[in-house]
Amino acid sequence: MNKYIDDSFALHTDLYQINMAESYWEDNIHTKKAVFELYFRKLPFGNGYAIFAGLERIIQYLQTFCFSESDLEYLTELGYQEDYIDFLRTVRFTGSVRAMKEGEVVFGNEPILRIEAPLAEAQLIETALLNIVNYQTLIATKASRIKQVVGDQPVSEFGTRRAHEFDAALWCTRAAYIGGFSSTSNVRAGKKFGLPVSGTHAHSFVQAYRDEYIAFHKYAKRHKNCVFLVDTYDTLKSGVPMAIKVAMELGNNINFAGIRLDSGDLAYLSKEARKLLDQAGFVDTKIFASNDLDEHTIMSLNAQGAKIDAWGVGTKAITAFDQPALGAVYKLVSIEDENGQMRDTIKISACPEKVTTPGLKKVCRIINNFTKKSEGDYIALACEQPEKETKLYMFHPVHMYIGKFVTNFTVKDLHEDIFEHGALVYDSPLVQEIQSYAGQQLNLLWEEYKRSLNPAEYPVVLSQACWDNKMKNIEEAKKYNRKSVPL
Amino acid sequence: MNKYIDDSFALHTDLYQINMAESYWEDNIHTKKAVFELYFRKLPFGNGYAIFAGLERIIQYLQTFCFSESDLEYLTELGYQEDYIDFLRTVRFTGSVRAMKEGEVVFGNEPILRIEAPLAEAQLIETALLNIVNYQTLIATKASRIKQVVGDQPVSEFGTRRAHEFDAALWCTRAAYIGGFSSTSNVRAGKKFGLPVSGTHAHSFVQAYRDEYIAFHKYAKRHKNCVFLVDTYDTLKSGVPMAIKVAMELGNNINFAGIRLDSGDLAYLSKEARKLLDQAGFVDTKIFASNDLDEHTIMSLNAQGAKIDAWGVGTKAITAFDQPALGAVYKLVSIEDENGQMRDTIKISACPEKVTTPGLKKVCRIINNFTKKSEGDYIALACEQPEKETKLYMFHPVHMYIGKFVTNFTVKDLHEDIFEHGALVYDSPLVQEIQSYAGQQLNLLWEEYKRSLNPAEYPVVLSQACWDNKMKNIEEAKKYNRKSVPL
Repeated sequence: MNKYIDDSFALHTDLYQINMAESYWEDNIHTKKAVFELYFRKLPFGNGYAIFAGLERIIQYLQTFCFSESDLEYLTELGYQEDYIDFLRTVRFTGSVRAMKEGEVVFGNEPILRIEAPLAEAQLIETALLNIVNYQTLIATKASRIKQVVGDQPVSEFGTRRAHEFDAALWCTRAAYIGGFSSTSNVRAGKKFGLPVSGTHAHSFVQAYRDEYIAFHKYAKRHKNCVFLVDTYDTLKSGVPMAIKVAMELGNNINFAGIRLDSGDLAYLSKEARKLLDQAGFVDTKIFASNDLDEHTIMSLNAQGAKIDAWGVGTKAITAFDQPALGAVYKLVSIEDENGQMRDTIKISACPEKVTTPGLKKVCRIINNFTKKSEGDYIALACEQPEKETKLYMFHPVHMYIGKFVTNFTVKDLHEDIFEHGALVYDSPLVQEIQSYAGQQLNLLWEEYKRSLNPAEYPVVLSQACWDNKMKNIEEAKKYNRKSVPL
Repeated sequence: MNKYIDDSFALHTDLYQINMAESYWEDNIHTKKAVFELYFRKLPFGNGYAIFAGLERIIQYLQTFCFSESDLEYLTELGYQEDYIDFLRTVRFTGSVRAMKEGEVVFGNEPILRIEAPLAEAQLIETALLNIVNYQTLIATKASRIKQVVGDQPVSEFGTRRAHEFDAALWCTRAAYIGGFSSTSNVRAGKKFGLPVSGTHAHSFVQAYRDEYIAFHKYAKRHKNCVFLVDTYDTLKSGVPMAIKVAMELGNNINFAGIRLDSGDLAYLSKEARKLLDQAGFVDTKIFASNDLDEHTIMSLNAQGAKIDAWGVGTKAITAFDQPALGAVYKLVSIEDENGQMRDTIKISACPEKVTTPGLKKVCRIINNFTKKSEGDYIALACEQPEKETKLYMFHPVHMYIGKFVTNFTVKDLHEDIFEHGALVYDSPLVQEIQSYAGQQLNLLWEEYKRSLNPAEYPVVLSQACWDNKMKNIEEAKKYNRKSVPL
């Protein structure tokens, strides 16, 4: 089947990127400096914030970006000519990247990554960068929503079998951990990312022994920590009593850590199972629940007084079931002109939200020194220094009459240097540190922005200079294109 | 970050599989022959059928299944003991697999794959098999739904940037092609699977040149086949007129293959653009449309008389947006007992649909010799030979009074031998052949099963022997477990 070996990710892109890069190269503007920004417009799940994830994977991708000989052979077969192929052979990523840290709390229309690179390079990497950020950020955000609901209770990621192929299963676990999950069932992810792994046994184990009593005994023989799955036949009449019986017989030879409920009425069953466990003296034995859970079912179960101590979440998190795509885009905001000067660019749209914001920008979080909470995010041109101001006017980027003055604040620039002229200059934190960072950043937000239903809208504003530059670019684009229409 | 290298897929599994295999091994039943069946219960998207995809990936996975030394080191770190690690080092897949061919039309509760293997092996591969089949089958089915709506018009897969990480982007393209798509924008997928690739340029290309007139000219200089993207500024006032102007100037130097609309009111814009193209004499220039399309929007556009010739489908297909998970399960249906006899197994549930059907089974499509259409699928015990019958009673597996007698039929066994005792015995067809096969199999279905909204329910029935065996197992399981409940 495979005439070519699948030995690089350079072709993990849309064909049009290869075509555009070819025209740039042919026109000799492929080395012109271009600035692209990667951002999404709308928060997913109706949530009040998102959690950025994906940088680690992007770093690996950019560091190893290179067309393999088999890539070039394939492109030759597609009809690309030798001179262009020779050029592609030399392409590496030589640009600079500033990006938010993984675990950062991020909102719509904020540049998450800013790529400054030779035009052709910046174009060739677009698709992969979007692919990575869109999925991992979606999952970290979904996990964070679920974490908001479970509080201090542990949540395990269980969804590999329903993931969209292998990579999703793998990288989801990491993104979910960043968002606040405590462990994963995916052993490869545990190995690759150093994440805690969890799991005991399935229904088939009980079926293989036919009988829960024998199955639990067999399991306990080799495994000291036991979480028995109790719903293979009948949870309250057979599963839980049998688990208790085995645990009593084995006494201190095992740690009867818990039982797992995977079907049926989890509210009712957990309450009744709790009674049975407590009556038998197993007051510290936990009740684990799974079965198509998400933030909504968990909130409902808690509201019903379910006696559940730990959660296994699969399908609904790993596929981001209620909104399985984040719509991040990658837009050209500035480009070097024929005289070597940077010219800001804009994409006009009949839909105001889709008009891009031109120019090289920074994202500043404005933290109130008194409340220690964030007043909102302030998107400014890269040359601005809001930290030197004593008073900022933060106005709505569409409805300008909505605004507030802020004083006594600290400015946090959310971007870090990741690559400088192709060289990695960033030390990636451990995933445990990233999870903590996300938690700390969420503490900067008022609770009203964090509730899962109808959260308040967090202010994301443009600086006056950024706004003025956008208006100027809109006017120019309209004039320029009116002039050039031929009919 | 990576203490261990990610050099195998053996740990691409849930931790509980490793734990269960350990107990089986410890109890010395790990080599007992077990039969697992993989199937889903409910068709996705409210569709009347599904298209199976994933076998190719499964073959690769099973052929290379092996714990690497770094896998074993990691498991040692997790606390697994040396004797078990030594056992895992020796594990390869030595079982037999019968499966449907890729592209097969499949329905709920039909065994898609049947695995006969030593118990521990069969358990260790469960998660990966489900991960593969769930995603690829979901996508092939979604693509087939879209193909039903577009008829003979071409559909290109465009969704890499919104896919759930790299593997999904890659394998989606193949599954979508199996379901009837004509090409993909993902170049790596084109290289790996020999699929047609398509794409021309993006908005950023126009922005880089500022002006559509210049941008289209620059593109055409290197690319003879031109599909110009016409909505960067204003589709009808600027984009289309400019595309026409450039095409007229270049005449026979290019093939003005099409324009692409990627935003706005596609019905209105396509009709107006068609007029402009026709007036200019470009009657063969096609109109391509994209922008969050799926079977519903395409059907609506066609109903509005939109003048669209070819479709680009991204997010909605690659994420299976309206139902991003298929719930295939992997159930133990028979196991070798202590005497070396096969004992059928069952999982009881309060929910009748979730009760498993015990025993080694086959799936037969019953084709009416007169109409050449399928009468339904007949699930029989492996030992049955419905092809030797002259009359079959096909009755509903839940509501038994619903049924029909069928005569003058041909029986097609849907399973093929894939592995025999660990050896691959199957020649994988080309993906183009798989696409054709899917089309042929769909021709066996009456149209009523194929409409996208409220399709008729295709009959999937159990043979009398299979039904009787299930009832016997239910009775035995109930008796057996009543006996063993201690309280």
